[in-house]
Amino acid sequence: MQTESGKWKVESRLTKASVCRSPPSAFRFDLKHTDAGSAARRSTLHTPHGSVEMPAFMPVCTLGTVKGVDIGRLGETGAQMVLSNTYHLALRPGEETVAALGGLHKFMGWSDPILTDSGGFQVFSLAQRTKIDEQGVTFRSHIDGTLLELSPERSVSIQAALASDIAMVLDHVIGLPNSPEAVAEATWRSVRWAERCLKAQMASSREDQILLAIVQGGLDPDLRRQCAKALVALDFPGYAIGGLSVGEEPADMYRTLEATVPELPVDRPRYLMGVGRPEDLLESIARGIDMFDCVMPTRNGRNALVYTDQGPLRLRNAAHEVNNRPLEENCPCPACRHSRGYLRHLFQAKEMLGPILASIHNLTYYQRLMLGAREAIVADRFDEFRQEKLCGWGVGRMQSRSGTQGK
Amino acid sequence: MQTESGKWKVESRLTKASVCRSPPSAFRFDLKHTDAGSAARRSTLHTPHGSVEMPAFMPVCTLGTVKGVDIGRLGETGAQMVLSNTYHLALRPGEETVAALGGLHKFMGWSDPILTDSGGFQVFSLAQRTKIDEQGVTFRSHIDGTLLELSPERSVSIQAALASDIAMVLDHVIGLPNSPEAVAEATWRSVRWAERCLKAQMASSREDQILLAIVQGGLDPDLRRQCAKALVALDFPGYAIGGLSVGEEPADMYRTLEATVPELPVDRPRYLMGVGRPEDLLESIARGIDMFDCVMPTRNGRNALVYTDQGPLRLRNAAHEVNNRPLEENCPCPACRHSRGYLRHLFQAKEMLGPILASIHNLTYYQRLMLGAREAIVADRFDEFRQEKLCGWGVGRMQSRSGTQGK
Repeated sequence: MQTESGKWKVESRLTKASVCRSPPSAFRFDLKHTDAGSAARRSTLHTPHGSVEMPAFMPVCTLGTVKGVDIGRLGETGAQMVLSNTYHLALRPGEETVAALGGLHKFMGWSDPILTDSGGFQVFSLAQRTKIDEQGVTFRSHIDGTLLELSPERSVSIQAALASDIAMVLDHVIGLPNSPEAVAEATWRSVRWAERCLKAQMASSREDQILLAIVQGGLDPDLRRQCAKALVALDFPGYAIGGLSVGEEPADMYRTLEATVPELPVDRPRYLMGVGRPEDLLESIARGIDMFDCVMPTRNGRNALVYTDQGPLRLRNAAHEVNNRPLEENCPCPACRHSRGYLRHLFQAKEMLGPILASIHNLTYYQRLMLGAREAIVADRFDEFRQEKLCGWGVGRMQSRSGTQGK
Repeated sequence: MQTESGKWKVESRLTKASVCRSPPSAFRFDLKHTDAGSAARRSTLHTPHGSVEMPAFMPVCTLGTVKGVDIGRLGETGAQMVLSNTYHLALRPGEETVAALGGLHKFMGWSDPILTDSGGFQVFSLAQRTKIDEQGVTFRSHIDGTLLELSPERSVSIQAALASDIAMVLDHVIGLPNSPEAVAEATWRSVRWAERCLKAQMASSREDQILLAIVQGGLDPDLRRQCAKALVALDFPGYAIGGLSVGEEPADMYRTLEATVPELPVDRPRYLMGVGRPEDLLESIARGIDMFDCVMPTRNGRNALVYTDQGPLRLRNAAHEVNNRPLEENCPCPACRHSRGYLRHLFQAKEMLGPILASIHNLTYYQRLMLGAREAIVADRFDEFRQEKLCGWGVGRMQSRSGTQGK
């Protein structure tokens, strides 16, 4: 087990230049400021494809595209890093085709940073007849039933072919609620797989990709802490928290973050996977999370639900029929060139442009929310910012850091 | 019958300033140049919402949007005027809703010129249980079966509410082939309806909308000529040719143009409705047509067929799987930021972005073709330009102006 430390530090503390596993020089995590009133952090992640200002939200490019959004429009939303799905791309068009087309950046036409997940979540949520053992997973493709296998080494290999900037370890994802024994078994298997992923990735000596660990442990704070400690001992350049936002109460998610985050090194990025609603993002930032991804803004957009500072709107509602106002007065997105009445018409008439514009608006909304969060953190007023937003959305503060539960 | 003349002239000939039916001053048709070797014309149509350089191609915004293309991207294709469908908008969301949302320009977010058709074509092609008499048409909505009526006066009224720059007369469209009697009856009814549309439009004293006539007559050159003469006597500010590209041989369409165009005044725009393939555009420009609209570039784009100077490509073809080239090396459109392999992947994976990008590429291709035509006309080399394009596409010259039929 790799136990060296100090290889991935806040820039000012980078002293051991000779350590062999230092992240490639193009990667650097600068922790710039921590909010005076919360654990919210303002940081910058530098990668070979440019920098990401954090807290950051990554739009999900499942199959190498945010559904319905061209890459130019995606850049205009303010997104600086996107997530793409290893499972989906390995099935279609196949990682070798992506590699033959120049890797994921060239394939998508996205020159900024890209993170790929490991495929684990989709294998457990989408694939059919999944069988798991210590070696890995065998499953049948959800598209054509082809028998496939995914192991920690194979996941690293696929992500290397895709040539993302940030790869994720393969973890054993299980549904919640589940028995404590099953959660513990999946958690410790995930730790062992993380170590195999790390070894496979080190063997490749890549300079242009880093690998992040994923803390599992269900809703058990002790198991989360133990898992985090074991992964931190492996000395990854960053840590994700997985297995949340899978149906549990928001308060349970926040409590789990409160147990887990303090175990993670201050000088590495922290990524909460698959989360979430705007209020989840702010509550998680307050608890020290730096990165997010979620299909919610695009999936909801496709279903005519759009975000505003006054809470979400359902565009199919007849109340919008002759409403001349844009979704948000000060929003620069292409949807906000139009009236709510026009956008409603697009959904009523089943025009593709409805889902397209609502997706772009929601992604823009999330990016503007992250921008607001970053500005609030450096001004030491993140808690005030969070309260303003929650109040506008009509959402109670879900749970304070001291444990008292709102709403 | 209105028989005054000289109200809509080439700018240099505008002498009768006091004529009551002069097009509003914001409308002007400048015929700038006629190609030395063909009837191709280079002109500019001025409207209250700006100018249109002609020959021009209008993308079709059926329900107030080009399917899948946001209005900013549409502008980037080079389109200067768009067509929107009266029938579709009257059904959804209804012209009163469009008017309440500020008219079609504000509704769509398009500040350049808009032409609306009359609804006639859709009533005859889409509506159910259509009954026609001299008064107008009754039919049932193709959406919900509601009983509706369309008359010349109602069509003008709907288009006034939509507030397009250019409205079209309601015509009686019939399928081809059909009996000579049926074609003649529909043609002369169309002329009577055109006169009723003109009276209705004059009664409204609109300064911001002009009404164009539509020449019918099937494939009968004599009937076409008679219809054109009758409509020209009514002194419209521009003339369309309808009822073509409905399944007839291209050579028949070109012969019909050759019979009809010489009857139309030189000093007014000529619009060939619903046409067509790139080669149809060039052949029709050579015969004196100034304006076109067609769903072909977008409908084909949605079905993975894209246009290039080497002829159309079917993107689903396996040959494109690992092709790193863009569709066209010198095309500035967002699709051409990507490889053919990526675009094929989008279609194979049924991603919305495939139809979106292919539509934008095809619209850009059509606009670049019109730009090339305009440049060739002013250089008196339109015929050479046409030959180059037809040769690149692998298409024979369909029929010369002298009547010898190619291919």
